[in-house]
Amino acid sequence: MRMYDIIMKKRNGFELSEEEIRFFIEGYTKGEIPDYQVSSLMMAIYFRKMTAKETLILTQAMADSGDKLDLSAIHGIKVDKHSTGGVGDKTSLALTPMVAACGVPVAKMSGRGLGHTGGTIDKLESFPGFSTGISNDTFIKNVNSIGIAIMGQTADLAPADKKLYALRDVTATVDNMSLIASSIMSKKLAAGADAIVLDVKTGSGAFMKTEEDSFALAKEMVTIGKNAGRNMSAVISNMDQPLGNAVGNAIEVREAIDTLNGKGPEDFTELCFTLGSRMLMLGGKAGSEKEARERLHEAVDTGRALDKLAQFVKAQGGDERAVYEPDRLELAKYRTEITAPVDGFIKHIDCDEIGICSLMLGGGRETKESEIDLSVGLLLDRKVGDKVNKGDRIAVVYSSDESKTGPVSERFLNAYHFSDEPVEKQTLIKGIIDGHDL
Amino acid sequence: MRMYDIIMKKRNGFELSEEEIRFFIEGYTKGEIPDYQVSSLMMAIYFRKMTAKETLILTQAMADSGDKLDLSAIHGIKVDKHSTGGVGDKTSLALTPMVAACGVPVAKMSGRGLGHTGGTIDKLESFPGFSTGISNDTFIKNVNSIGIAIMGQTADLAPADKKLYALRDVTATVDNMSLIASSIMSKKLAAGADAIVLDVKTGSGAFMKTEEDSFALAKEMVTIGKNAGRNMSAVISNMDQPLGNAVGNAIEVREAIDTLNGKGPEDFTELCFTLGSRMLMLGGKAGSEKEARERLHEAVDTGRALDKLAQFVKAQGGDERAVYEPDRLELAKYRTEITAPVDGFIKHIDCDEIGICSLMLGGGRETKESEIDLSVGLLLDRKVGDKVNKGDRIAVVYSSDESKTGPVSERFLNAYHFSDEPVEKQTLIKGIIDGHDL
Repeated sequence: MRMYDIIMKKRNGFELSEEEIRFFIEGYTKGEIPDYQVSSLMMAIYFRKMTAKETLILTQAMADSGDKLDLSAIHGIKVDKHSTGGVGDKTSLALTPMVAACGVPVAKMSGRGLGHTGGTIDKLESFPGFSTGISNDTFIKNVNSIGIAIMGQTADLAPADKKLYALRDVTATVDNMSLIASSIMSKKLAAGADAIVLDVKTGSGAFMKTEEDSFALAKEMVTIGKNAGRNMSAVISNMDQPLGNAVGNAIEVREAIDTLNGKGPEDFTELCFTLGSRMLMLGGKAGSEKEARERLHEAVDTGRALDKLAQFVKAQGGDERAVYEPDRLELAKYRTEITAPVDGFIKHIDCDEIGICSLMLGGGRETKESEIDLSVGLLLDRKVGDKVNKGDRIAVVYSSDESKTGPVSERFLNAYHFSDEPVEKQTLIKGIIDGHDL
Repeated sequence: MRMYDIIMKKRNGFELSEEEIRFFIEGYTKGEIPDYQVSSLMMAIYFRKMTAKETLILTQAMADSGDKLDLSAIHGIKVDKHSTGGVGDKTSLALTPMVAACGVPVAKMSGRGLGHTGGTIDKLESFPGFSTGISNDTFIKNVNSIGIAIMGQTADLAPADKKLYALRDVTATVDNMSLIASSIMSKKLAAGADAIVLDVKTGSGAFMKTEEDSFALAKEMVTIGKNAGRNMSAVISNMDQPLGNAVGNAIEVREAIDTLNGKGPEDFTELCFTLGSRMLMLGGKAGSEKEARERLHEAVDTGRALDKLAQFVKAQGGDERAVYEPDRLELAKYRTEITAPVDGFIKHIDCDEIGICSLMLGGGRETKESEIDLSVGLLLDRKVGDKVNKGDRIAVVYSSDESKTGPVSERFLNAYHFSDEPVEKQTLIKGIIDGHDL
C-alpha cells in the first residue's frame, strides 16, 4: 500500500477503506509518512469530504494511536462531558459536582486554556493548593469514593490527532466537519467513558460561528460516538455573548459557587441543568428529563452539590474553605467600572473580544508557555437585550496592573453595540441532538 | 504575508496576486516555506485551477528562481524546440541540422532519458567521442560559426520548478494543466530563446493520453509563452505508436541520418518538416509554410542538412565520419526477428510498452544512476494499419544479452493488437496552435 495511491483515490472522489485509513494514521503517527503527503490528503478531504463510515474509521484509528484510559475499575456508568469551548465557560466547575451528587461518576481529563478561551484546570487552580497532578490510583480511588476526579492530560491520548491537528492548523485544512468531529471524538473515545454529553457552542465567541455549522458538527460527533458504541447527546448552546457574567479564572469559580448555591446567572444555571439532565439520563440515574431536573434541583437546594465540590477540592489538595467562603478566592486589586456611553439597548456583543480582554489582563495564555494571573477578569452586569441609561455600569474590570485597565476598557466598549430600539434576549439552548434519535 | 493566507485564499477560490505567487515561489526555493504547506496549496490548485494570469506569473516566478541563459551574443532570432516526450522521438537529431542549414541558429540545452522515453544527449553520445560538456564560450562560438550547439543542463535553470515538480510527483498533484504547462515553460523561458516551437505528443506513449488534454496543454503553453513575450507555435502530434521505426539510441541516430538523406520513415520525416517550417517562420527565415518547406527540402536534397550534422558532431568532439558511414554507429550483436502470430491488420500498439522493451534491453534508465547501452534497440517493420500475414517479420530486437531477447519479444508481441478487418493508418499531425491566432 502506498500513501500516494491513497491521496489519489480521495482526490478522485472515492471512499477510502478501513485498511487505507489505518495505514495512513499508523504510518503518520510513526513518522513513516511525511507531512507533505498528509497535508495534500487533508486538502483533498476538504474538497471531497468524508463519508460517515470513513469518519468513524478515522476517529477510531486516531483513538487507537496512543494510550486509552481504562475506567473499568470505576463503578457505574461513566459519563463524560465535553465543551467545544467559549468565553466564560465555567460549566464543568458547577456541573460536575451537581451530577456527582446525583450519583453519576465523573472521571475527567481536562486541559488548560489557550487563546481567548479558558481551561478548567486553570480555573480550579484558583483554589489554593489544588493540583491535577494525581496518580492514576488516586484518580480511580477518588472517583469511587467522592464521585469526582480531574486529571491533567498526562496520558498520550490520540497522538495521531495531535500531530494531524497541528498540521491542519498551518495548511488551511481545519474547516471540514468530519475532520473537526473526528479530532474531538478521537480523544473522547480514548478517554474511555461509556456515554458522552457534548456542549457544542455556536456564535461569535465559538469555534463554530453559525447555527447551521454547529448543528452539523453536533450531528457528526453524535453519529461517530453512536457508531463507536457510546451513548451520546449533544446540546447546541449560545456563545454569541459570554456564558454567565464572569470571565476570568477565580471570578468564574466564584460564579460557579454562586450557582451551586442556587444564586447563579440564569443562562449559566439553565445550561448546567440542561447538560446535567442529559448526563443523568445517559448515566442511568433518571428516566426522564423532568426526573433528572428534579434530582439536580434537589442536589443544589440541599447543599449536596456544593459539598461535593468541597470534597473534590479537598481530595486534590485544595483549600475547601473557599467553597463556603468564596472571598478567599482572591480577585485583582484594581477595579474599574465600565459605563454605558449612550441610552438604549444592548444589541450585540463581539463575544471573542471579551475573551481577548481577559487575555490582555493576563487571565489567559497567548502561547503554551505563558504564566497566567488567576485573579484578573471581568464581571458583566448587562448583556444582550438589556436596557441601559447613559452612565449605567455595564461591567467591572479586575486588573493587577493599573496601566492595562484603559486599553482593556476601550476594547471592551468597542465590543458592545447599542440600539435605540428594544432588542430580544438571546436564546441559550438552540437545540439538542440525542444519539438514540439518529 | 503568510503562506497560510495564500493557501486559504486559493482554497476558497480566489485568484492569487503576483505578490503572493512570488512570495510563495521565492520562499519555497529558499527553503523558508515547508513542503507541507506547498503540497496543500498544490492540492487546492488541483481543485480550484489557476487563471491564465496566475499561470503566467507562476511560470515567470519559477523561471526567475535560478540562472537564466543569456543568448544575446548569438546572432539572429533564436528558436527553441521542445517535445513533451515519447517513444522513438529522435526529432532533434534530424530537425536541428535541417533548420540550422536554413539559417536558424540552434542553441539547445538537452536532457538525458528517464523511464520509457529517451533523451537527445544519450542518442548523440552514440557518435564516438561526442560530448555535451563544452564551455559557455564554446557553446556561443559554435552556434555563431556552425549554427548548432547542444549543452547538457549544467546551469541551474528554474530550481523552483525542479523542487515543486518533485513534490507534486509524490502528492498526487501533477495532473493540473496550468501546473504542467508552467513547469515546462518555466525552463523554456529561462533558456532564453526568442521563439519556441512545441511538439506536444498525444496518445498511449505520451504523458497526455487524450487529444483533448494535449490540445489543452498546447494552448496553455502557447498562451504562457505569448504572454511572456515569446513567439510561439505548438504542433500536436501522434504518440499512439512509436515515431518512425527505430527505438533505442544508436539505432535512432541511424534513422535520423537516413532522414537527412531523404530516406527516412514517412511519419518522422513529415514531423520534421512540420516542426521545421514553424521554426523557420518564427525565425524569420520563411514567410509562409510553403516557402519554409521548400527551403527545408532543399537543405536535405543538397546534402547541406547532413553536412550540418557532421559539422556539429565534429565541433563537439564526435567522429563525424559516422554521419556519412552510419555503420560506424554500432548496433548490438544479438538480433532476433519478431513475426506476426496471425494474418490480419495491426489494430493498435501499446506505445509505452515499446519504450519499456527498449528499457528492458538496457537502452534506457530505470533510475537517474543507471548506465545505458547505446547499441540496443528495436526496429519496427510494421505499424498500425499495416496488413500482415502470419510469419511476416514485424520487428527486429537488437540485444547485447541473449537472455533478454525472449522476455522482450514476448512483451513486444503483447503490445501489438491485430484485427481481421482493415484498420486506418494513424494521422500524425493532430493540429497546430500558433501564438498569433490566440
